[in-house]
Amino acid sequence: MSTELESIKLRLREFAKERDWDQFHSPKNFSMALIVECAELVEYFQWLTDEQSKRLPEDTLDEVSLEMADIMIYLIRLADKLDVDLFEVVDRKMLLNAKKYPVDKSKGLATKYNKL
Amino acid sequence: MSTELESIKLRLREFAKERDWDQFHSPKNFSMALIVECAELVEYFQWLTDEQSKRLPEDTLDEVSLEMADIMIYLIRLADKLDVDLFEVVDRKMLLNAKKYPVDKSKGLATKYNKL
Amino acid sequence: MSTELESIKLRLREFAKERDWDQFHSPKNFSMALIVECAELVEYFQWLTDEQSKRLPEDTLDEVSLEMADIMIYLIRLADKLDVDLFEVVDRKMLLNAKKYPVDKSKGLATKYNKL
Amino acid sequence: MSTELESIKLRLREFAKERDWDQFHSPKNFSMALIVECAELVEYFQWLTDEQSKRLPEDTLDEVSLEMADIMIYLIRLADKLDVDLFEVVDRKMLLNAKKYPVDKSKGLATKYNKL
Repeated sequence: MSTELESIKLRLREFAKERDWDQFHSPKNFSMALIVECAELVEYFQWLTDEQSKRLPEDTLDEVSLEMADIMIYLIRLADKLDVDLFEVVDRKMLLNAKKYPVDKSKGLATKYNKL
Repeated sequence: MSTELESIKLRLREFAKERDWDQFHSPKNFSMALIVECAELVEYFQWLTDEQSKRLPEDTLDEVSLEMADIMIYLIRLADKLDVDLFEVVDRKMLLNAKKYPVDKSKGLATKYNKL
Repeated sequence: MSTELESIKLRLREFAKERDWDQFHSPKNFSMALIVECAELVEYFQWLTDEQSKRLPEDTLDEVSLEMADIMIYLIRLADKLDVDLFEVVDRKMLLNAKKYPVDKSKGLATKYNKL
Repeated sequence: MSTELESIKLRLREFAKERDWDQFHSPKNFSMALIVECAELVEYFQWLTDEQSKRLPEDTLDEVSLEMADIMIYLIRLADKLDVDLFEVVDRKMLLNAKKYPVDKSKGLATKYNKL
């Protein structure tokens, strides 16, 4: 794990401990909190066209960034609780994706691997 | 941004480019992909008790880890598209959270800041 | 409540009872199941353009319809558990929406009521 | 389709038309709006225990009911756009579920059909 990710993990752990919040922080509850934050992100985009979503006004972009931070925060907290190394699993998943989506089969297609 | 996060960002960018996938990768579509991955995580927990969610069987934990990797991957991709520095916004959000949830007011409570 | 909705509610109740599933069917768990089904719907649309989403191939439309059925089923089950009359609350919400979105202010705008 | 569902569908159609909102109402966008409403429901339950979710305070229950109304409203609108008869597909899905989850195999188990 990178020093920076490790450092955030420890600060978040301390933040929850000071507030006696670990009683609420089961993996189940974190999965719910995560998807709630994701939906707050989705809400910004729901009525926008694809093009509009690429050119967000500066204040919207700032709000969107903070929603992304919330997702990251809950993801790091969940990883801490489950003792998952986020960078390690991302690395592993990227290798799996390279096998599931060979360039010659998936080029230019948004098709899911099981239908390629 | 950490060297490791930067490196993953570049590898993911290359992965999409090789497959000519940037045509699908608008921020709007990424927000949808993100929440779909979150829901795949939620699905593992939906019928579990809190306690069960803390003691996942090893093979389930492995599958859950890979769902978390998917969330991380889409979050990094979205951040790349929107030119957001994930660690910087997490840092900013943690400062905001410290203000929204002062220890003395929020200790032991799962109450949202606007109802504290 | 309409006779048809009432009849589905009773059949779903019986379905769960026969399988001894009420032990899993807390409102909390149903909210998770609901969002998981919604995400399965979202997955069909995530890489489509707006236009493509309006002209789904027949087999995709059939799959999408069944995802919509899943959402409806969990919504009816949750309403049963919470003793909520779905048609009554829809009626009430539509009156609220008419006040939150007066025609003259909201015409042609996808703006949320609190920013109108 | 029941008379009541049909009547709501027509009122919602008129509501959107008066506000010139059909330009935003693609099936893709509705799938996003639906999941955002679902997440607002999930948010009420995320830190509650199972037991707490069964005994909501009256004002919370009222708010939860209105979130359920939002889900129902978007589901009916999406069904209208895709020309799907909600009660018909629910009926069809219930028959499929009865086959996927035979009583003797699924009794007392929250296991997904493909792992039974």
